[in-house]
Amino acid sequence: MTLYDFFLSSCAYRVRLALALKGLSYRQVSIDLGKGAQFARPAEADIGQPQVPVLVIDGIALQQSLAIIECLEERHPEPRLLPADWQGRARVRGIALAIACDMQPLANLRVSRHAVMLAGDEGAATAWYDRWLSPGFAALEAQLSTEAETGAFCHGEAPTLADICLVPMIFAAHRFNIDLDPYPTLTRIDASCRRLSVFRQAAPAAQPDFDPARAPAPRADDLLEPIGP
Amino acid sequence: MTLYDFFLSSCAYRVRLALALKGLSYRQVSIDLGKGAQFARPAEADIGQPQVPVLVIDGIALQQSLAIIECLEERHPEPRLLPADWQGRARVRGIALAIACDMQPLANLRVSRHAVMLAGDEGAATAWYDRWLSPGFAALEAQLSTEAETGAFCHGEAPTLADICLVPMIFAAHRFNIDLDPYPTLTRIDASCRRLSVFRQAAPAAQPDFDPARAPAPRADDLLEPIGP
Repeated sequence: MTLYDFFLSSCAYRVRLALALKGLSYRQVSIDLGKGAQFARPAEADIGQPQVPVLVIDGIALQQSLAIIECLEERHPEPRLLPADWQGRARVRGIALAIACDMQPLANLRVSRHAVMLAGDEGAATAWYDRWLSPGFAALEAQLSTEAETGAFCHGEAPTLADICLVPMIFAAHRFNIDLDPYPTLTRIDASCRRLSVFRQAAPAAQPDFDPARAPAPRADDLLEPIGP
Repeated sequence: MTLYDFFLSSCAYRVRLALALKGLSYRQVSIDLGKGAQFARPAEADIGQPQVPVLVIDGIALQQSLAIIECLEERHPEPRLLPADWQGRARVRGIALAIACDMQPLANLRVSRHAVMLAGDEGAATAWYDRWLSPGFAALEAQLSTEAETGAFCHGEAPTLADICLVPMIFAAHRFNIDLDPYPTLTRIDASCRRLSVFRQAAPAAQPDFDPARAPAPRADDLLEPIGP
């Protein structure tokens, strides 16, 4: 498998997390979104809009992080990223899609740059992120802090597709200086995930194309010893 | 099952299409997004951000149209909305998510109104829709017009989750006056779908809360006789 990837892409980060959780090895090709490399992807990865991630399996290019992860789940069922019961699967997919459809698409560089251009004011970027991310985080916090299914992770005691979407979203929020103090359940789960070796392995800072000058500063708990094999 | 629904919501339209294609009956509750009814949803439907659709199954509220449809697919496998082969499922989910994550979230009223406010110009709404929808449609057209799997529908000769996402997206584009002439494959598939009785049944114009004063004008092919049972 070959993953067309970029260390700062939160959608590519989701796929790296799924691959790491399932213990799958892959070849990594960096597509520098900051330098427009997505407009000149190699032919084997040229599918859909000029973006990453693209995962190539047996010569077939797959687009869209959640479609890629559903495919990995079908082909490599263990460890499961979706619960065994239908209610659990619907809950986990609902949380994942609330992030993937209602938050991330509005809070990324191409959209915020356009908002800045419309407003004619650099300060508009932070307000833009806050306008779309804060209601999303507030709704997730309300859900996760009250539902019995929430455990050490978004759903029970093992990471699922929901955590795979939450951790990169919190990474982006941190990068965009969103205040996360109002969301203690989300930040607790995020911190639990990021302590795991397998999450460390997929983190932006561990990628070959990582560039500290373009990444947000590490958080204090990034420096704690990782847990697990 | 109870569907919290609104005739103008393209995400609710997806769920109505899935329910219609599977021949499932349900109770419908209209939540008028134009009048802010989403901020006062009944307790049983109060999950996640203030939105529709919400589908309540056995007292459990499900959020996010694609999570709801995956759940319907698992519980009511026939007729299938996802192909039997992994490559096909990944292709269909990839097309569906390209619409659901990269197009629809940027092209809806709450976001375009905000863009108008930033730009201080009513004309900004059309430019905003065009800015985000046109590259998405162009990428989909390039994919669907060249891949062998495309048939009368997005994937082969029966409707799938990809068509369920495409038809409401084209409906929204029509409403927002986006020029669709550059996308003949997409408009051909959309027209084939909308001729089917089962698609007619789920269309905005067939809903109990339909308000012609707030809906786009019907298209010429809406007046042709529907096909199928």
